[in-house]
Amino acid sequence: MVLMEYVVIGHGTAGQTAAAVLKKVDPESQVTVIEKGRHVAIHPCSLPMVLSGRLSLAEVEERVPRGKVDLISGSEAKRIDRERKVVYFIKDGSLESIGYDRVILATGLRPIVPRVEGIDLEGVGTVWDLESVSDLLRQLGNKVVVVGGSATGIEVASELARTGREVTLIEATEQLMPGKVDPPISSLVMKALNDLGVKVMLKTPMERLEGSGGKLTHVVTPKGAIEADTAVVVIGARPDVSVALESGLRIGETGGVKVDEYMFTSDPYVLAAGDVAEVRDFVTGMPTLTGLASTALVQGRIAAENAAGGRVKYPGALSPFLVPVGDRFFGGVGLSASRAEALSIDYLAFRFSGADLPRYMGGRDNVVIWMVTDREGRVLGAQVFGRRGVRERILFLTAAIYANFKVQDIRIMEFAYQPEVCDVVEPIATAAEGMYRKYLSPRGDLSEIS
Amino acid sequence: MVLMEYVVIGHGTAGQTAAAVLKKVDPESQVTVIEKGRHVAIHPCSLPMVLSGRLSLAEVEERVPRGKVDLISGSEAKRIDRERKVVYFIKDGSLESIGYDRVILATGLRPIVPRVEGIDLEGVGTVWDLESVSDLLRQLGNKVVVVGGSATGIEVASELARTGREVTLIEATEQLMPGKVDPPISSLVMKALNDLGVKVMLKTPMERLEGSGGKLTHVVTPKGAIEADTAVVVIGARPDVSVALESGLRIGETGGVKVDEYMFTSDPYVLAAGDVAEVRDFVTGMPTLTGLASTALVQGRIAAENAAGGRVKYPGALSPFLVPVGDRFFGGVGLSASRAEALSIDYLAFRFSGADLPRYMGGRDNVVIWMVTDREGRVLGAQVFGRRGVRERILFLTAAIYANFKVQDIRIMEFAYQPEVCDVVEPIATAAEGMYRKYLSPRGDLSEIS
Repeated sequence: MVLMEYVVIGHGTAGQTAAAVLKKVDPESQVTVIEKGRHVAIHPCSLPMVLSGRLSLAEVEERVPRGKVDLISGSEAKRIDRERKVVYFIKDGSLESIGYDRVILATGLRPIVPRVEGIDLEGVGTVWDLESVSDLLRQLGNKVVVVGGSATGIEVASELARTGREVTLIEATEQLMPGKVDPPISSLVMKALNDLGVKVMLKTPMERLEGSGGKLTHVVTPKGAIEADTAVVVIGARPDVSVALESGLRIGETGGVKVDEYMFTSDPYVLAAGDVAEVRDFVTGMPTLTGLASTALVQGRIAAENAAGGRVKYPGALSPFLVPVGDRFFGGVGLSASRAEALSIDYLAFRFSGADLPRYMGGRDNVVIWMVTDREGRVLGAQVFGRRGVRERILFLTAAIYANFKVQDIRIMEFAYQPEVCDVVEPIATAAEGMYRKYLSPRGDLSEIS
Repeated sequence: MVLMEYVVIGHGTAGQTAAAVLKKVDPESQVTVIEKGRHVAIHPCSLPMVLSGRLSLAEVEERVPRGKVDLISGSEAKRIDRERKVVYFIKDGSLESIGYDRVILATGLRPIVPRVEGIDLEGVGTVWDLESVSDLLRQLGNKVVVVGGSATGIEVASELARTGREVTLIEATEQLMPGKVDPPISSLVMKALNDLGVKVMLKTPMERLEGSGGKLTHVVTPKGAIEADTAVVVIGARPDVSVALESGLRIGETGGVKVDEYMFTSDPYVLAAGDVAEVRDFVTGMPTLTGLASTALVQGRIAAENAAGGRVKYPGALSPFLVPVGDRFFGGVGLSASRAEALSIDYLAFRFSGADLPRYMGGRDNVVIWMVTDREGRVLGAQVFGRRGVRERILFLTAAIYANFKVQDIRIMEFAYQPEVCDVVEPIATAAEGMYRKYLSPRGDLSEIS
């Protein structure tokens, strides 16, 4: 039996998963992970909670299982010599190399740092990794501007508002999370942020940062200068394709490393997984970048199995996500209406608001369901906003899209009921029924629908 | 346009839903509901909480929407004269009748009252409706024996233990909820009851009830007499088919009213829905009774649409259920392993326990997933036990069964992640992965699985 040598580049969710799966499916193999950071693994989704002090930096460092995988941390991979099958990396200042049979490239994203005046002022930082959060914590004042209405921007604003700080969130476009969530949901998110005391300014790009004595004093926008001692700049990230470019791997139209449906790059011995990989969208079939740990995990698993000789197809990214905002949550999965619009995909959409608990239980609240279907009622996407049960609805709707359910199926499906956690009438079913009645069942026409 | 006249018999979940849907799909029609009880609608699932005082009797009475449906309460339907198309019912002691074009029979269940000595003693009661709970509340002492390890028995025992009462639960068979949940879950439920202070005695049928001065003193079992001032007898229920029998409708092998897949009884003008109807099980295709509000709701909707001229197929009962036990929940959907065993259906089963929150979040606990599949990995049933997220997993697994997912699909699916509500590794996916590795993927065989 030939001993296989696998090299995984990057120890984020995709890399960690890939390494673990490789050892599981090919236990005799040699698995080496090369990771740039000193902190070998963290949970990026926990970072906003570190910023507000709900979690400590130490708490969110991942314990790395010992003994199975050879982890080389603090080492930056530079290039894959695909002819000689060697990965070059920098460790302690010197160039080293390691041979491979298969490489899994999981270099993830790097944050976009806008080239505006004042970006280097004290008080300006980002939320990206332990280092950046640690830096930001040292500089954190009481008048904070969060730049960017992304999921991270919303979480950071929400967390900092908890601590009593004066928080303003500015977003360049006309809504929060454009393309990801549609106006019926983003307006609820905006209201939830307002309820937490966050001032939200839309159509307000950051022009530059002003300071005095090297310290931030104002964030300047077309609508005027906002007084601030802290600016948290979270305007996005792009795939970290430096190794891929150095190695001559094909880059896709989104800027990620192009992979086929088995997660192979343009080189049959190199796979890519996670945020760096350009995959297909499950619904549209179009190239996309995912940027979600839960999605990276699946890709890491599939890349590892296929690196080890399997032939597991990646079904395409559904990209379900969840974001907390105060004591509410919202989330989405699949195609948004605004994205459908942009792609000229014909769609139907429907908003429904229903109770999350029976009338007689305390703490009852509304949950809002927004569903996007095709003209036949097939679910293409959905978004949910509410106080409880948001994940359960996103989970169900993820399955619904994967399974090609129509609203005609959902309106006659059974939803587990118990008054302490939900009402007997499930808002998803009512939304599906509403869509069916409004768009798909001309009055009086009750012909075969199942 | 001919004005249709619909009569719905019974105002439980199926009847209420049917009446509401009839008015929606056929707004000009006359819809009359005949209901035996004076309290026109209640939520049976809330009754254990009434017993413990968390809810009042008044709180769990349903407000009935006015004006659309003609509700005749306190009136017992006796017979459908199918030739003359008239329903006879008793109102205020006299026999009345109402004509119909279509009837929907939704008479539900009636509780089984065991014919044992002492059943009429003071201190002996049941949890069935507002009347029985009201009676029981007046007699409730401090040493309670709950007779029957059904979902209701478990909820009643759990609720009464909250109030500091001394509670013993006796169950005739060798486990709680036999056939509904499998031993890996029922043993966790038993432990949870023990943690609440409930003494659980299995293989312990009630033989008789002993009293003194007309009041209960002991519940007698083969294992001895248990001292008690209160016995709550919840040993089950059977379909209330008296109207169906009087009307000559066909009864199925389970004792429920036989319906076809469009919810029609043996009479083309009479449909049945909810607990009284014998429907097909989604997984096995065999006749079954459901006894769940969430399932009755779907049947009520379909019966109403088809009564109004539609042709919607009932896909079969998946019967997802949820039961609270202290601050835990458990639930199930589809086929149990024990039922598969009893029916000689070949199956695989796998138990997995995983974290419900990331390591760094407070209050982390385990969630236990039990999955039952066929030999190819197709999900036939599942059960879940945990502190949080039980409903979300049952919802997902309901969709999985409906969609014919295999564990091969689930192990590569994306599960929405956010550290405040779940870990990035979803226990359902890990359970699916475990089943795949254990049963479906001979080591080294990683051939096409999608």
